[in-house]
Amino acid sequence: MELTGRRRVRDILAELSIDPDTVLVIREKTLLTRDEWVGEADEVEVRPVISGGAGGRRGQVPRCRRCREPAVIEVRRHNASFCRPCFLHHVGTQVARAIEDHDMFRPEDRIMVAVSGGKDSLALWDVLLEQGYRATGMYLGLGIGGYSDRSGAAVEAFAGERGAELIHVDLREAYGFDIPTAGTKGSRSTCGVCGLSKRYVFNRIALDRGFDIVATGHNLDDEAATLLGNTLRWSTEYMARQFPVLPAREGMVKKVKPLYRISERETAAYAFLRGIDYVVEECPLVAGNTQLRYKDAMNRLEAGSPGTKASFYLGFVERGSKLMGSVPPADLAPCERCGQPTTGRFCAFCRAVAQVKGLTLGAPSSAEVDHTEVDHTEGEDADRQTAAELSEEVLPAEIYGR
Amino acid sequence: MELTGRRRVRDILAELSIDPDTVLVIREKTLLTRDEWVGEADEVEVRPVISGGAGGRRGQVPRCRRCREPAVIEVRRHNASFCRPCFLHHVGTQVARAIEDHDMFRPEDRIMVAVSGGKDSLALWDVLLEQGYRATGMYLGLGIGGYSDRSGAAVEAFAGERGAELIHVDLREAYGFDIPTAGTKGSRSTCGVCGLSKRYVFNRIALDRGFDIVATGHNLDDEAATLLGNTLRWSTEYMARQFPVLPAREGMVKKVKPLYRISERETAAYAFLRGIDYVVEECPLVAGNTQLRYKDAMNRLEAGSPGTKASFYLGFVERGSKLMGSVPPADLAPCERCGQPTTGRFCAFCRAVAQVKGLTLGAPSSAEVDHTEVDHTEGEDADRQTAAELSEEVLPAEIYGR
Repeated sequence: MELTGRRRVRDILAELSIDPDTVLVIREKTLLTRDEWVGEADEVEVRPVISGGAGGRRGQVPRCRRCREPAVIEVRRHNASFCRPCFLHHVGTQVARAIEDHDMFRPEDRIMVAVSGGKDSLALWDVLLEQGYRATGMYLGLGIGGYSDRSGAAVEAFAGERGAELIHVDLREAYGFDIPTAGTKGSRSTCGVCGLSKRYVFNRIALDRGFDIVATGHNLDDEAATLLGNTLRWSTEYMARQFPVLPAREGMVKKVKPLYRISERETAAYAFLRGIDYVVEECPLVAGNTQLRYKDAMNRLEAGSPGTKASFYLGFVERGSKLMGSVPPADLAPCERCGQPTTGRFCAFCRAVAQVKGLTLGAPSSAEVDHTEVDHTEGEDADRQTAAELSEEVLPAEIYGR
Repeated sequence: MELTGRRRVRDILAELSIDPDTVLVIREKTLLTRDEWVGEADEVEVRPVISGGAGGRRGQVPRCRRCREPAVIEVRRHNASFCRPCFLHHVGTQVARAIEDHDMFRPEDRIMVAVSGGKDSLALWDVLLEQGYRATGMYLGLGIGGYSDRSGAAVEAFAGERGAELIHVDLREAYGFDIPTAGTKGSRSTCGVCGLSKRYVFNRIALDRGFDIVATGHNLDDEAATLLGNTLRWSTEYMARQFPVLPAREGMVKKVKPLYRISERETAAYAFLRGIDYVVEECPLVAGNTQLRYKDAMNRLEAGSPGTKASFYLGFVERGSKLMGSVPPADLAPCERCGQPTTGRFCAFCRAVAQVKGLTLGAPSSAEVDHTEVDHTEGEDADRQTAAELSEEVLPAEIYGR
């Protein structure tokens, strides 16, 4: 980035028409607040924090709200700035509150963290390890060329540095196909078959290996954008299940989203400040942008009125979701091929794999639509979501009760 | 507007960064579709249709969906274009459907149409007269200088041309204050005291003169934007009452919104094509822009996915609103000063008037908050709404049941 003269970060961002809440500004491995000055010779990185695409108000250098030391990051919706230790404490507190408020898990539980190599899932894994939980990472190799290679390497490096347990499953080795191939064969979009595969494999591995919980890195921005999409359609069944916790059912592991109180920018800042070397690039197969449009709409509303995202999703969790009532859980029976729970004769994953491989599974049962194939927490857009989003979608939420 | 060479309307709008769904393009008193060509010497008016602020996809000139004649307007969410007669028929049909679906009124009912002089309320009055309803206009003079003078004149001209009955009440003559004065005295914002006054006066005049119905010109964009604001806060009590019909209660006339199926651009096109000389300018006192931000967000989502507004608000009317349950109506008693229903000792209007005039009404009752003062259909933003919006807000919806 070329800079002439000494200028404030916020002025540079304004000139570039960049919403400060959608990026981290980094100089020599240090986060800059929007009130800090940048010199002509400085090398500055403006790092987007929105999964699925690149995207100050005081006169003085801000001080940490907790300890009054110089701050490294602002959190506008809290109208607060934090120094590094206090920001990490803030994130830890928010996660602890999410875990407690929704009785997500206890210290003795075995937690499987679905990790993609991106900022959210690695930040989640890090927080859980820091807080002493028994958190094992689970990485699914999707076969998306260099992107998957780099993602897998980031996850391996993270686990290695911490001596943390990591399960690494490769889709091609375990199931005989990869996502780029599956996206060109069969009736599903690339993102659709990718999300379905991850939900299936994470749940199955968790069951097989005796985990109590699957935890995913969905953050506040993800949840607010998805809720906006579902609300704009009044997809009340999907809304009813867009909750930070989905309890276990026969054949389905309990699913939790401990980062639902933390914004995307906060998880990115957390990962950066903790020195986590996450994969910044987005999946090269991302095509659709519906979820990004919802994120964009929420970001604009947030810019005009900080706290909009939080009041929308947290208000839903506290009040709105109570309106949705309980949706009776679907009747499940074992898939005739793999034994996983399904509402049809064969589960959606087995049917998709059969399509990709050109196999015939037998005539479908009367229940033509298998409800396990749709993730109700994502609404109709599951197929059009960004891969980054879907990389943290794990379980077929629809067949959970609340 | 200066134009070089012959260009299509849509290219001109794109160059000006104007969303085609937010304007009418007019050349020599004729609407232009976005596929039409404009010459260098042409005088073209780009008229905004969004209350509260100014704001084609086929290769050939579009044809009317109904009769195949050349079209004058596109309605993107219906993926349709219409010629003038068929567009007017389309609007009439949508209004007739709204009236029938919600049993708004019958031919024998006496309807008072709250008219501001803007496109929506005059279009509504026109449609109702065309369909043979007994529709009397009611204009409230707010005393906002030339803006009010021109608005009143537009309403008088409309009524005169049609020989329609018009009630014209002046706030200063009837109640001894005007809106600019009230906005600088008392504790309410200008838009807040304006909305409150209109709701009060329209209801009171309707009661006094034996009307069965008060009809307002709220369109689909108004309702979608308001619903978005209420939903982002999960203000479920407000949402529960944001319905096209609010039934009568003791002291409160039934309220209906027959244009809720028609977009803002459609009401503007209807008014233009019917030759209605409506007031295009916005109220000069408009200050807040929360409602405009919601409209902007909805317009962006609509541009990416035509039909978003309609599926959001109409989906709410059909499905979402059922979730909200019924809110028990507040206990009402006559205001000790004016006799209108209120939850306190004095109604919100009398208290506001007393504030403006520096009078003392007596100690407030234990019910400090008078629920009649808030219009729940507008949520917390009633005070920050555009005056154009509020000019069509009539009744204190909160004290209605559903």
